[in-house]
Amino acid sequence: MFSLKKFLEQNPHRAWFIYGGVIIAVFLLGLFTSSIMQRRAEAVFAYKPAVKINAFEADSAVWGANFPREYESYLRTASTNFRSKYNGSAMRDMLADYPALVILWAGYPFSLDYNQGRGHQHAIDDIRTTLRTGAPMKPEDGPMPSTCWSCKSSDVPGEMRKAGSAAAFYKDSWASKGPRITHSIGCADCHDETTMSLKITRPALVEAFERRGKDIGKVTHQEMRSLVCAQCHVEYYFKGPEKYLTFPWDKGMSVEAIEAYYDGINFSDWKHKLSRTPMIKCQHPDYEVYLTGLHARRGVTCADCHMPYRSEGGQKFTDHHIQSPLNNIASTCQVCHRESEEELKRTVYTLQDAVVEQRVRLEALLAKAHIEAAFAWEKGADDGEMKEPLTHIRHAQWRWDYAAATHGGAFHSGVEMSRILSSGIEKAQEARLAVARVLSQRGFTGSVPMPDISTKDKAQRYLGIDNAALTAKKQQFISTVIPQWLAEAQKNAARNVK
Amino acid sequence: MFSLKKFLEQNPHRAWFIYGGVIIAVFLLGLFTSSIMQRRAEAVFAYKPAVKINAFEADSAVWGANFPREYESYLRTASTNFRSKYNGSAMRDMLADYPALVILWAGYPFSLDYNQGRGHQHAIDDIRTTLRTGAPMKPEDGPMPSTCWSCKSSDVPGEMRKAGSAAAFYKDSWASKGPRITHSIGCADCHDETTMSLKITRPALVEAFERRGKDIGKVTHQEMRSLVCAQCHVEYYFKGPEKYLTFPWDKGMSVEAIEAYYDGINFSDWKHKLSRTPMIKCQHPDYEVYLTGLHARRGVTCADCHMPYRSEGGQKFTDHHIQSPLNNIASTCQVCHRESEEELKRTVYTLQDAVVEQRVRLEALLAKAHIEAAFAWEKGADDGEMKEPLTHIRHAQWRWDYAAATHGGAFHSGVEMSRILSSGIEKAQEARLAVARVLSQRGFTGSVPMPDISTKDKAQRYLGIDNAALTAKKQQFISTVIPQWLAEAQKNAARNVK
Repeated sequence: MFSLKKFLEQNPHRAWFIYGGVIIAVFLLGLFTSSIMQRRAEAVFAYKPAVKINAFEADSAVWGANFPREYESYLRTASTNFRSKYNGSAMRDMLADYPALVILWAGYPFSLDYNQGRGHQHAIDDIRTTLRTGAPMKPEDGPMPSTCWSCKSSDVPGEMRKAGSAAAFYKDSWASKGPRITHSIGCADCHDETTMSLKITRPALVEAFERRGKDIGKVTHQEMRSLVCAQCHVEYYFKGPEKYLTFPWDKGMSVEAIEAYYDGINFSDWKHKLSRTPMIKCQHPDYEVYLTGLHARRGVTCADCHMPYRSEGGQKFTDHHIQSPLNNIASTCQVCHRESEEELKRTVYTLQDAVVEQRVRLEALLAKAHIEAAFAWEKGADDGEMKEPLTHIRHAQWRWDYAAATHGGAFHSGVEMSRILSSGIEKAQEARLAVARVLSQRGFTGSVPMPDISTKDKAQRYLGIDNAALTAKKQQFISTVIPQWLAEAQKNAARNVK
Repeated sequence: MFSLKKFLEQNPHRAWFIYGGVIIAVFLLGLFTSSIMQRRAEAVFAYKPAVKINAFEADSAVWGANFPREYESYLRTASTNFRSKYNGSAMRDMLADYPALVILWAGYPFSLDYNQGRGHQHAIDDIRTTLRTGAPMKPEDGPMPSTCWSCKSSDVPGEMRKAGSAAAFYKDSWASKGPRITHSIGCADCHDETTMSLKITRPALVEAFERRGKDIGKVTHQEMRSLVCAQCHVEYYFKGPEKYLTFPWDKGMSVEAIEAYYDGINFSDWKHKLSRTPMIKCQHPDYEVYLTGLHARRGVTCADCHMPYRSEGGQKFTDHHIQSPLNNIASTCQVCHRESEEELKRTVYTLQDAVVEQRVRLEALLAKAHIEAAFAWEKGADDGEMKEPLTHIRHAQWRWDYAAATHGGAFHSGVEMSRILSSGIEKAQEARLAVARVLSQRGFTGSVPMPDISTKDKAQRYLGIDNAALTAKKQQFISTVIPQWLAEAQKNAARNVK
């Protein structure tokens, strides 16, 4: 039989080579093992709770002590970088870009001020400074209820508890809560402070599930990776005089089902200043639209693309810099799709081009419809005659707003967006036809004269909006009331510590 | 050093094991080699030209002697199986399914008869028997030029050569070519008879490329796998009194570019019987729509999904049973996509549902627009007043037809289809608005009365179409003229053989 001993005895010069090879291999194995141990140790260390986090802890910096990577990436939501072709730099003045919007929202605060949104870090700043929240010099002043804070701050769950119930929280004025709500959207909005598992902290989503006979406690972790977002990124309304935050999903989640819900309860957010239409303002039905798209059907969640995994120091963690996946294609799209970054961007842009084209066309038609309806009222049209055109305007603008207000709809579900917009176009034109008939029966057979609404300024002046005066008032509010809120908040914080 | 000889001498009992093992391994290797040789031989045999194929050989059965697998699969295009949710069984009466189409095509042969298409094997049968080609009892009779045969038969390349030029071929009457065109679409339409490589046999595509400064001789094989289809599956028109088959791509291939081309040359296929609009009938812009979609951008060709590879007897070949990829998901979609058949079908159906919904809505609006325009003419409207609404009708119906006539558009490019349909909806409504204004200026301020067009029969009767009489004439043509054509064709064939 072959004997290594004998072989080495017979070939002593070869023996040294074999010895040397084994020694090098063992050395490399040692290096490799050490590397694994070190990385593992680092990972274990990073997850070890260093600080006990209290229930309802609104300050994300406290959570950040235990989860530095998640927290640091979260802080980057303060960035105002490029996001995509159509939402470009944050805080772009959308009314300046699309002056027809001023007409579409005539009589509603959105006609005063509407900017491209920014990252979660800015939520508090932006709701304080928009003209839409007015300039409430006293706690009871201002147009908005406390419900408006619901999606803006990680203070909300704790404030609801202090108030005793969500209903008690909502019913106050917006300004009365100013000193108590200071932390932007953060950890406490989506996480349990002991297990760190995902958690629904807002009652509206839980209640909407309940009314549809579903138990949100029984969904999977993967579903939760979208549902924590769906606490806010949905269509909702302020129900009744209590302004109770409510999701209108009882008849379904399609644009038609939600419209039927609102029609069924005769709901309107405001009466249009020109056409006198009882209007519905759509919020951002992101979750609803996402559900109709291909990525949702394939089990891809919000977090998969907007909060992809990253790896640092041997530790895999979720990137909490929530942003457009197009800023981070290598970690998002390219996990599944093998095309180049440039090609993937172009794919998204092609969808956006087509959907934006339709949206802008519908915008122009709706502006005409409102102005023509106002002209019919001037000519003495009565409520009976105007019922048909106003119903068409209500439904057409609801469809437009559904498609305009949702984020990323062209990508999430391009064909569904188009379907919604094309039915909006049909209805806006149907409204104009009905108004033309009303006018012709009153002897007016020409084209309705159109005002110059080619800029935000011209459109606002046409509606009698004194933007300068509103801005001056707002500046006064910002320079006097906000510092008071901050001072009071500091006092409260100091009191809590004692 | 180690010596096998020495080892075996020292261990004779082990030697037998090794000998046995080697013998078994060699035996298995022999079996495997034999299998490869056999399959290879079969493959070589199958591709060995058994019959010399003449240039312009129109009879696919002749080609089939050399390529039995391709030919047998081609014969299966005679099947009328399920194809997809919306085109269901072939030969479905589309006018019965969508009676508004009768109104949309009033004054044009499509309003008489329009069925869901069948496979390539049926092309000759179906063009002979449709009411659209009339009942030409003599060669010079009938409404159609010979150009109509262009996409129906593998006889066409040879007939063009015999005629001396494509122009000489096109200018004859359709009926005059009846006895010469007997073979349905087949091998000669797309293949070179000696090399079997893909070949463009129709001049219109080559000329369209030339006018755009492109050389179709320089495209890749992969591009050819779509371009042979694009010889026919495109938008085209019959140019001038010579009825010269022409692709309207000179300004581009988008719906707007082709419309601009037709507007630029004041082209119309017919004058609408009700609205008197100069109309454009769209053919089937399949290639144009496909190019705007994601699969085209990813380099997937027509053949990849409609003619996937199959393997039989060790030979890989292209399945010439051209059909919906949904009939064959395992060989088509699932080559790239890892979802279940059911899920992939549902994905396509979701797109189709959304696009069909928009198409049907636009159909209804167009029918109203034509009827309302006819009413305005009755009320004494003049050409000047009607110019605006008729231009809108022309453009709206062009968009509708572009989306309706293309095959698989909802799947090939769902968002582009939606974009086209929504602009069609806007324009159809714009037409109705303009008509309403014309009517009101003539003192009519009500709603235009709508006829009952809820069935094909009612819609045809409204237009004064005597379907029974046309069908009787067609039957006479089928029972007398077609047999004459076939007899003459046999005589010609016999003469050629001698």
